[in-house]
Amino acid sequence: MPWFNTITTGRMNGMGLVGIEDIRAAAKRIDGIVLRTGLLPCEWSTPDRPLWIKPESFQAIGAFKVRGAANALAELSEAERVNGVVAYSSGNHAQAVAHAARAAGITATIVIDDTAPSTKVEATRALGAEVVLVPLARRQQVAEDLAARRSAALIPPFDHPAVIAGQGTIGLEIAEDLPDVELVLVPVSGGGLASGTGVAIKALCPAATVIGVEPELAGDAAASLAAGHRVHWPSDQRVRTIADGLRAEPSELTFAHLSAVLDGIVTVSEQEIRSAVATLARRSGLVAEPAGAVTTAAYLYRQADLPAGRTVAVLSGRNIDPNLFVEILSQ
Amino acid sequence: MPWFNTITTGRMNGMGLVGIEDIRAAAKRIDGIVLRTGLLPCEWSTPDRPLWIKPESFQAIGAFKVRGAANALAELSEAERVNGVVAYSSGNHAQAVAHAARAAGITATIVIDDTAPSTKVEATRALGAEVVLVPLARRQQVAEDLAARRSAALIPPFDHPAVIAGQGTIGLEIAEDLPDVELVLVPVSGGGLASGTGVAIKALCPAATVIGVEPELAGDAAASLAAGHRVHWPSDQRVRTIADGLRAEPSELTFAHLSAVLDGIVTVSEQEIRSAVATLARRSGLVAEPAGAVTTAAYLYRQADLPAGRTVAVLSGRNIDPNLFVEILSQ
Repeated sequence: MPWFNTITTGRMNGMGLVGIEDIRAAAKRIDGIVLRTGLLPCEWSTPDRPLWIKPESFQAIGAFKVRGAANALAELSEAERVNGVVAYSSGNHAQAVAHAARAAGITATIVIDDTAPSTKVEATRALGAEVVLVPLARRQQVAEDLAARRSAALIPPFDHPAVIAGQGTIGLEIAEDLPDVELVLVPVSGGGLASGTGVAIKALCPAATVIGVEPELAGDAAASLAAGHRVHWPSDQRVRTIADGLRAEPSELTFAHLSAVLDGIVTVSEQEIRSAVATLARRSGLVAEPAGAVTTAAYLYRQADLPAGRTVAVLSGRNIDPNLFVEILSQ
Repeated sequence: MPWFNTITTGRMNGMGLVGIEDIRAAAKRIDGIVLRTGLLPCEWSTPDRPLWIKPESFQAIGAFKVRGAANALAELSEAERVNGVVAYSSGNHAQAVAHAARAAGITATIVIDDTAPSTKVEATRALGAEVVLVPLARRQQVAEDLAARRSAALIPPFDHPAVIAGQGTIGLEIAEDLPDVELVLVPVSGGGLASGTGVAIKALCPAATVIGVEPELAGDAAASLAAGHRVHWPSDQRVRTIADGLRAEPSELTFAHLSAVLDGIVTVSEQEIRSAVATLARRSGLVAEPAGAVTTAAYLYRQADLPAGRTVAVLSGRNIDPNLFVEILSQ
């Protein structure tokens, strides 16, 4: 994992996990680069389970990923900054790194698979990044080779303490805005968001329950937590879900965090995800991508599995395919 | 105008207009009832005109109207509260009064025309209000008769100082959040929102320009400002616009405010309004009704008529017809 060599790791607690002090430090570093989102109350929620949405959809680039990217870049040394950074992604992480690098005055190179939609490629270029298009199978290798050749830091989407700590600022803000929160629902994919958010909530609101949410069709983390060790689902299974932001699987590092801080993971069906996208648009005026809507789906359809009380659902991003959005709203 | 008899008017300035002190008092009264919205930065705006959206779409009932209604109800005497309140509307004002009345523990009766969509009737009932369905032509008369018979206060949608002062809290919040704002864009219909917002901005940010925005097809206020007196457009002209929230015309009271505080009014075409609805959804993750999107349309398509600089566009509401929203997003 080359990035462990090129990025200074944050201070860790005794178990080797990211701690609340790492997240507090991240909050200071990304202040002014990342939007401080509030909590939106949902008047359509039920009285015994008042719901607030944490709308990370309003971040520049439309997703929470900019938090972790900005924190990872802020930890680079002056020598590392000069060499620029490299990332590989076809999703929100590509634009997050490009955005954070531009804000930090660092050169970014993003390796994208050549089957990605041209809109994503153009959006990444528009943020000032160099884009390298390669076949999907070679994406990671090309990125690692590029980083090695340039002595550039490779910024991973989730498998790094600095990225986890950056995403954890979401939990910090929830605790500041609603200190008596009783339930936090957070999407799980690679696990950076759920790890960081869980660490912050467990440290600051120890009485609160933290539940991860996955699509049933990409329920590998739920299966892993149940088994007590990482269970691998083949990618051809995970890609079945419309929640394209939730098709990754946890790393050893994020799985260790998830095991420590999550009280459980619930899964939701594709139809429930679609219904949640529609509910967020019609009743809260929010555009959500399927990955961002899974927590609202859990709120709507998994109440039997969830404690009642003041609930926060993290809406992780808004970058839904326009045709899918129309299709869902037409149903 | 029966409501002048039954609601205590706020303190006015020498010209008989609502002043900044009325708006400050309103902010205190509606605190805790109305959402304190922030400003959302738009990374897609041009560098010389950075744009922030004031998302009133996140208010309970999905529109700013709850501010004015809550302030008008807060000004009622104990004797008046006992008799309940009456309003007539087929739009956001009906639900705003119902919502504010429920929050204040006051009985609300809303007179709605019997051709209004059943969803609006049900939504108003769901907020605990009694709904009286009558033919559109008899709506105002029935409401006034009901109010007189019950000695109940009639809450108007815009033609009252307490309502104007309540809407003015939007300007107060903009001035708090972005004290060096240079341009504020605000929709104009009956004129309560633009009056209140303009009063607050001119008092707190005197260097800022305040521009009203109307649909070309309901450009009566623009014509009135140009003429220096109220110009009446027949309602069969005003109803042509898809911006159903902007089909009213200013009263004597609001026109006096608009003349005093607006630096001008620009108009936008139906196609420009549709395009702005799509831009807000695709690039900012916000659902806007056409009336709420006119300010973004002005930002996008009237830059030649507007000063450059830090710009705030008031997004007044999200209650778009679902079929229209799909139609716009499909284009």
